[in-house]
Amino acid sequence: MKKWTTLSREVVFRTPWYTFDHDRFRLPDGGEGDYWAVRTGGAVMIVPVDDEGRIVLVRQYRYLLGEDSVELPAGGLPEGTAPLEQAKRELAEEARCGASRWEEIGRFASWNGVTNEICRLFLATGLAPADAAPDRTEEFELLRPTWPEVRRMIEANEIFDGMTLAAFALAGRRLDETAGGGGA
Amino acid sequence: MKKWTTLSREVVFRTPWYTFDHDRFRLPDGGEGDYWAVRTGGAVMIVPVDDEGRIVLVRQYRYLLGEDSVELPAGGLPEGTAPLEQAKRELAEEARCGASRWEEIGRFASWNGVTNEICRLFLATGLAPADAAPDRTEEFELLRPTWPEVRRMIEANEIFDGMTLAAFALAGRRLDETAGGGGA
Repeated sequence: MKKWTTLSREVVFRTPWYTFDHDRFRLPDGGEGDYWAVRTGGAVMIVPVDDEGRIVLVRQYRYLLGEDSVELPAGGLPEGTAPLEQAKRELAEEARCGASRWEEIGRFASWNGVTNEICRLFLATGLAPADAAPDRTEEFELLRPTWPEVRRMIEANEIFDGMTLAAFALAGRRLDETAGGGGA
Repeated sequence: MKKWTTLSREVVFRTPWYTFDHDRFRLPDGGEGDYWAVRTGGAVMIVPVDDEGRIVLVRQYRYLLGEDSVELPAGGLPEGTAPLEQAKRELAEEARCGASRWEEIGRFASWNGVTNEICRLFLATGLAPADAAPDRTEEFELLRPTWPEVRRMIEANEIFDGMTLAAFALAGRRLDETAGGGGA
């Protein structure tokens, strides 16, 4: 596909976590238009698998949905921070553990119609407890289902966070191999 | 988890597709804070499977990523439009086909840290060609991989759209059963 050209860009609003931008663009056919976008510095998400093949998930309240959601540990990537460093921090803060083995297994675009955000996905194994104070606004309840249990939760739509589902799609084959492929 | 209370809400900016809002909220512990959010009317995504078990995907240019992306047909839900009606429209416009059988198979939150959007996922089968003029800014190239081929594209990270990956996580078991579970 042909690329579009950015004619101008302005920051409409700046939050502590991202900018809300307005671009003017030109299409390959010469037509022009407006694009409003949330631009972030990227994100990281972690699939933490313990020595028993259990996956560490966090249940948290999601203000914009008005309900709890069960998700993989994740967070935004502050400018100038290495993705792996941030992944380690998020794992400690949300899942309260560290990991001896880290592997980047893929990337996905979080919501590409509205944001440029790319989320990097890490597999973390060799887990051990760690202490870290979570953010004031974040309250987490930990779950440790097996991979077959996670698949049942997905099938039942009990896991409905898009990024978490995307991560399991990317990590699925590997989890089949390393965390037990047994079905329901 | 305890719910948060919305103290105030104002629209900071209104685009043709969504509003960018600023909320003040109160936490269960009494603390207060700011939340900026993209609020949409929801979205729909379709898993179209033809009689040979092939899945219809669309390759399109994604302005915010600056590159092409291979995705399931999808679109925003205009206010007052039934999700199934919009799903039929998106399938016609993007995949240029209609379907004789529709089933809603799940929902997911598109990007719940920043948007309230819930995307409803439909399985569409009994496909037949249809004509519909796409939006001016949208140029699509159609692909018809089998489900095992899609799984290889996911494994290779060639499919990296988060919503599309989320949809395949939700639809996977069903695709294993109906569209050929054979692996690479």
